[in-house]
Amino acid sequence: MTGLFVTLEGGDGVGKSTHARRIEAWMRDRGIETVRTREPGGTELGAEIRQIVLHHRGHIDSRAEALLYAADRAHHVATVVRPALERGACVIQDRYIDSSVAYQGAGRDLGSDDVRALSEWATRELTPHLTVLLDLDVAEGRRRMLAGRSGLDRLEAETVAFHERVRHTFLGVAALEPERFLVVDASRPQDEVAARIAERLETLLAAQRGQTSEGHASS
Amino acid sequence: MTGLFVTLEGGDGVGKSTHARRIEAWMRDRGIETVRTREPGGTELGAEIRQIVLHHRGHIDSRAEALLYAADRAHHVATVVRPALERGACVIQDRYIDSSVAYQGAGRDLGSDDVRALSEWATRELTPHLTVLLDLDVAEGRRRMLAGRSGLDRLEAETVAFHERVRHTFLGVAALEPERFLVVDASRPQDEVAARIAERLETLLAAQRGQTSEGHASS
Ligand SMILES: Nc1ncnc2c1ncn2[C@@H]1O[C@H](COP(=O)(O)OP(=O)(O)OP(=O)(O)O)[C@@H](O)[C@H]1O
Ligand SMILES: Nc1ncnc2c1ncn2[C@@H]1O[C@H](COP(=O)(O)OP(=O)(O)OP(=O)(O)O)[C@@H](O)[C@H]1O
Ligand SMILES: [Mg+2]
Ligand SMILES: [Mg+2]
Repeated sequence: MTGLFVTLEGGDGVGKSTHARRIEAWMRDRGIETVRTREPGGTELGAEIRQIVLHHRGHIDSRAEALLYAADRAHHVATVVRPALERGACVIQDRYIDSSVAYQGAGRDLGSDDVRALSEWATRELTPHLTVLLDLDVAEGRRRMLAGRSGLDRLEAETVAFHERVRHTFLGVAALEPERFLVVDASRPQDEVAARIAERLETLLAAQRGQTSEGHASS
Repeated sequence: MTGLFVTLEGGDGVGKSTHARRIEAWMRDRGIETVRTREPGGTELGAEIRQIVLHHRGHIDSRAEALLYAADRAHHVATVVRPALERGACVIQDRYIDSSVAYQGAGRDLGSDDVRALSEWATRELTPHLTVLLDLDVAEGRRRMLAGRSGLDRLEAETVAFHERVRHTFLGVAALEPERFLVVDASRPQDEVAARIAERLETLLAAQRGQTSEGHASS
């Protein structure tokens, strides 16, 4: 049995980092080893790649950029995520393949099918057990984000129309995979959002325990 | 009409650089603008990527490595090769997709179909008009290489058996695309090899001239 792989998705300021921390605490309260991570930058190689993408002078071909992010993802999954899952730890990751699809696929000049296929190849098709999509009005996300921070990075500085497209691409992807996704109304109070996530995690852990005891019974 | 895209393939020491220079001179004698290039390292971004791959401490996931090389290729094709071809220049490139297939696909743990698909996506399927495969006994290539240089890099230091597999993968790929490939016995004297290549280039240029005059006639 491997550990649970949980990813958090959604636009800027929807509460991904907040709920990643809360899920981590929730898991640890239950005595479950937990690794909280994010992309890019989760590994030394990732930091080097990010350095290239963010600081390269001049234009980077869009496919080259997508391939660099996929390389970071491949390395991160192979060296951080899979080893943790294999020793039974729960991995909670802030953004994963669905973010690439929503941002690069829908918003820029690459097709979303291509972007997904690239990431699936990179990760040897490592699919989350649960993806929490925090859905929120773009303007509200921006307000939350600005309240807590100063300055916007490149993606965040895109137009509101772009972020609206991203939001709807996320919802579209979630609708195609209802088993994997939990879509939460992130405009609700934080504790309420956390409770909805916890409810689903309980179900997943119970199902895993069921599989394990069946495993024991038949062995 | 675009310029001719010619690639040179084959193992170490078979004469790729020698004949890239000779083709360049041959084209210039005919008044054709020519760009001679190679991968990786053809661009500033490529140099940065190569720096990561060669100097990273510790293991790099094999898919991550393939994705990094594909990113270099995407950028090199988009910013160097395509612009040159589009202004009608001839591009002569030392190693391209077939080398990735032969070295990464056949020799390591990635499937050659995957490696080719990745490169085709990266380059938006830019296929050479001509690929010259210089075929030579592995031991003879090694002798030629050692005669001219000191020290072996990582790939060159692989076993003879590995290089034999690479040689036969190249031959297999060439057999599947006889139109694109010219396979030359590289054990023959250099001038004889050059003459065989020149013969094929004449045919290609004549075919292009034919197309151009047809183009003029019908416009
Ligand atoms: N349900 C909520 N209601 C109100 N405020 C919230 C809620 N959830 C989180 N916040 C606040 O919104 C701000 C942004 O949250 P957080 O940093 O977790 O979002 P994020 O999705 O990680 O953003 P980013 O995309 O910038 O990483 C924080 O100040 C956080 O406390
Ligand atoms: N047909 C030939 N007969 C004998 N020697 C040759 C022939 N062609 C090239 N050489 C010599 O073999 C050596 C290797 O040639 P070259 O550097 O062009 O090979 P290469 O394929 O580019 O090698 P590498 O893989 O190391 O880049 C050079 O010293 C070159 O002069
Ligand atoms: Mg965050
Ligand atoms: Mg050479």
